[in-house]
Amino acid sequence: MLGAAPEYPYTIAMTNITSYIAEVGRSARAASRVIGSASSASKSEALKQIARAVDAARDTIKVENAKDMAAAESNGIDQPLIDRLMLDDKGIDQMIEGILQVESLKDPVGEMSDFSYRPTGIQIGKMRVPLGVIAMIYESRPNVTVDAASLSLKSGNACILRGGSEAFHSNQAIAACVVQGIEAAGLPGTIVQLLNTTDRAAVGELLKQDEFIDVIVPRGGKGLIERISAESRIPVIKHLDGICHVYIDDEAEPDMAVAIAFNSKAEKLAVCNALETLLIHRDIAQIVLPQLAAKYQEAGIELRGCARAQELVPMTAASEADWGEEYLGPILAVRIVDGLDQGIEHINQYGSQHTDVIVTENYTKSRAFIAQVDSASVMVNASTQFADGFEYGLGAEVGISTDKIHARGPVGLEGLTSQKYVVFGSGEIRHR
Amino acid sequence: MLGAAPEYPYTIAMTNITSYIAEVGRSARAASRVIGSASSASKSEALKQIARAVDAARDTIKVENAKDMAAAESNGIDQPLIDRLMLDDKGIDQMIEGILQVESLKDPVGEMSDFSYRPTGIQIGKMRVPLGVIAMIYESRPNVTVDAASLSLKSGNACILRGGSEAFHSNQAIAACVVQGIEAAGLPGTIVQLLNTTDRAAVGELLKQDEFIDVIVPRGGKGLIERISAESRIPVIKHLDGICHVYIDDEAEPDMAVAIAFNSKAEKLAVCNALETLLIHRDIAQIVLPQLAAKYQEAGIELRGCARAQELVPMTAASEADWGEEYLGPILAVRIVDGLDQGIEHINQYGSQHTDVIVTENYTKSRAFIAQVDSASVMVNASTQFADGFEYGLGAEVGISTDKIHARGPVGLEGLTSQKYVVFGSGEIRHR
Repeated sequence: MLGAAPEYPYTIAMTNITSYIAEVGRSARAASRVIGSASSASKSEALKQIARAVDAARDTIKVENAKDMAAAESNGIDQPLIDRLMLDDKGIDQMIEGILQVESLKDPVGEMSDFSYRPTGIQIGKMRVPLGVIAMIYESRPNVTVDAASLSLKSGNACILRGGSEAFHSNQAIAACVVQGIEAAGLPGTIVQLLNTTDRAAVGELLKQDEFIDVIVPRGGKGLIERISAESRIPVIKHLDGICHVYIDDEAEPDMAVAIAFNSKAEKLAVCNALETLLIHRDIAQIVLPQLAAKYQEAGIELRGCARAQELVPMTAASEADWGEEYLGPILAVRIVDGLDQGIEHINQYGSQHTDVIVTENYTKSRAFIAQVDSASVMVNASTQFADGFEYGLGAEVGISTDKIHARGPVGLEGLTSQKYVVFGSGEIRHR
Repeated sequence: MLGAAPEYPYTIAMTNITSYIAEVGRSARAASRVIGSASSASKSEALKQIARAVDAARDTIKVENAKDMAAAESNGIDQPLIDRLMLDDKGIDQMIEGILQVESLKDPVGEMSDFSYRPTGIQIGKMRVPLGVIAMIYESRPNVTVDAASLSLKSGNACILRGGSEAFHSNQAIAACVVQGIEAAGLPGTIVQLLNTTDRAAVGELLKQDEFIDVIVPRGGKGLIERISAESRIPVIKHLDGICHVYIDDEAEPDMAVAIAFNSKAEKLAVCNALETLLIHRDIAQIVLPQLAAKYQEAGIELRGCARAQELVPMTAASEADWGEEYLGPILAVRIVDGLDQGIEHINQYGSQHTDVIVTENYTKSRAFIAQVDSASVMVNASTQFADGFEYGLGAEVGISTDKIHARGPVGLEGLTSQKYVVFGSGEIRHR
């Protein structure tokens, strides 16, 4: 087909997608002006109405979700992906709970802070404002539709949602509830627009709408995110790998260390905040590693270790590549280190600046770890699995940023806003 | 030349620039680890030593600056640009004052805030951290070299500076003082690296170093900034137009309105925070416009007005294009509006989201203006000319951002940092 002139219907389809996406962008920009200055009360009302609409549409959502599940099964999609796709009553309850939790958060828009007088007499501070229009491009899990819509709305933004083709029917059913709820609160339904196409060209078109879209938030596999970062003319808040570490210090409390290292990996394997490489101080390794190895083995988790780890517990040898691997599954890399410095060096060299933990009772070493590990979430004596917006009290998250610009770590309401300067004067003029 | 094989020396030059820039990037990344964890005391010492070195090198700086001035004059460069290039003792004093002011600011790195307990028992908050490596690409004014270096250093970042060819000698002389000061404080001189080439290919190479550079800050003409935004693989903090407005409300105090509208334009013309379009409520226009017109005329400023403005004062007719023009010179567009709503609508339609002012005594209208005007700086009863980092108390600025992502308005220390999450636990594990 390469080099051949495109056939007529193909050209038409492209033209349609271009104009469709431009129209979606224009509507979103117009809607952003309305939601950007909507009162806290009307935003709360819209969120309550969305929760009500989702609750009332349980049967429809489940019927539509069953279509996606059937298609996924007949397409031979992997079981973990099918699990993430499924929406049962428990899943719907969680969506509703998520919406109501976002509703209960403080409205970030209009928050004013840091006002002080300058010697000239002007008083200067900041006001929190919405970004404008957010486009989310995501795969698989249909609950993202509701999380993204709730957070955008509460933070005064309009949003454009582009879900994965495998969740098409589920997403459409959920988005219908979202629009119904927004309109029931007297706001324009275009505040949240879910694209009605799974044509991949739509993504390319979205990335060009820098006039109408202020930020792109991709969620999905590394391939999707890399493609979007490379192509986008619009700023991207992105999440790449989650190569998370736990460093067990020689001054760790051993039972706590075992509990944290086990939970960080085994509580959930296929998540970005799961432990991927365990680092253990050489002087505590013989106490904690055998216990941990037994627990991991019971949980069906394979260990791949450095030479010193292999001396203590029989396991496969780790290759250099293992230190940079995000397994997202039942494999864990293990390295014995000489001390804190080597641990921090390992994390900064091989990690992905996502979430890293030290287990220690030593005050000075805990401070050094916090200061020197350059990751979005740095923890002392807690499980990596806490690194998400819900656990951090953000209500929900549109994603976890491994970028440094704008937003780092779980992105909730604050990450979807910006701050402008406000100056109160009493007639001051400047003399240069 | 198109299609022809590049000649041998040309190829060599390109290869050299590629490897030179890669080496600069690598050194900057290494230096960023040192400055990122440097103590407040050693950063202060470095800034004091830089100020001392600049003071001691006054004669050299003036000699080198004279070379640039001579070249600019013989190249027939515009007088305003030549003025910006000139460094006399007053200019050097201001550079030194700027360095010492940055030195006296609170160290932003390590600032911890917003810690609170979650129901799970973890305590979560944020810590301010450097971005890493900042690349500044700028034209003309050599004092940017010192401002950018001071702010980067204080905020714990390494920086790469690429000044304009017209200020090459001045910049090299200043950068030598900067490096000398840093080394006198026992820190590596590579924390601040000024490129030793004015080859334009160097900019293209810088924009590819996403492994070593975390953010690009361009300062200069619109062409430069658009080229950098389009080409860069690295996030850009940018400033486009400064189409600033003053809206004089019918409830403005007339003398204050005249003073602010005049100062906003006439205090300095060729700056991004200068007034470009004056909006006046129809009910106060006949009081303030004739007075203002007389003052502007005296200052040699041409008015271009809407039909209603022309009825009150003889002036050229403004075309549609005038509302979107950043004159940066002695021309001002004037429009009479029906009220606040039309004023806000005009600003949001034609403005560049830089700096906009309302002059009013009315409380409700001042609040509406602040909430509804979507600009980086929104002011009540003060001159647009206050919109800069020095006046806002940021010490200096690396630029004024008209973006919404990451930093808006004058970018000082805070804009060169990011926040990571810190979690303090006592052995908590997560149960999903």
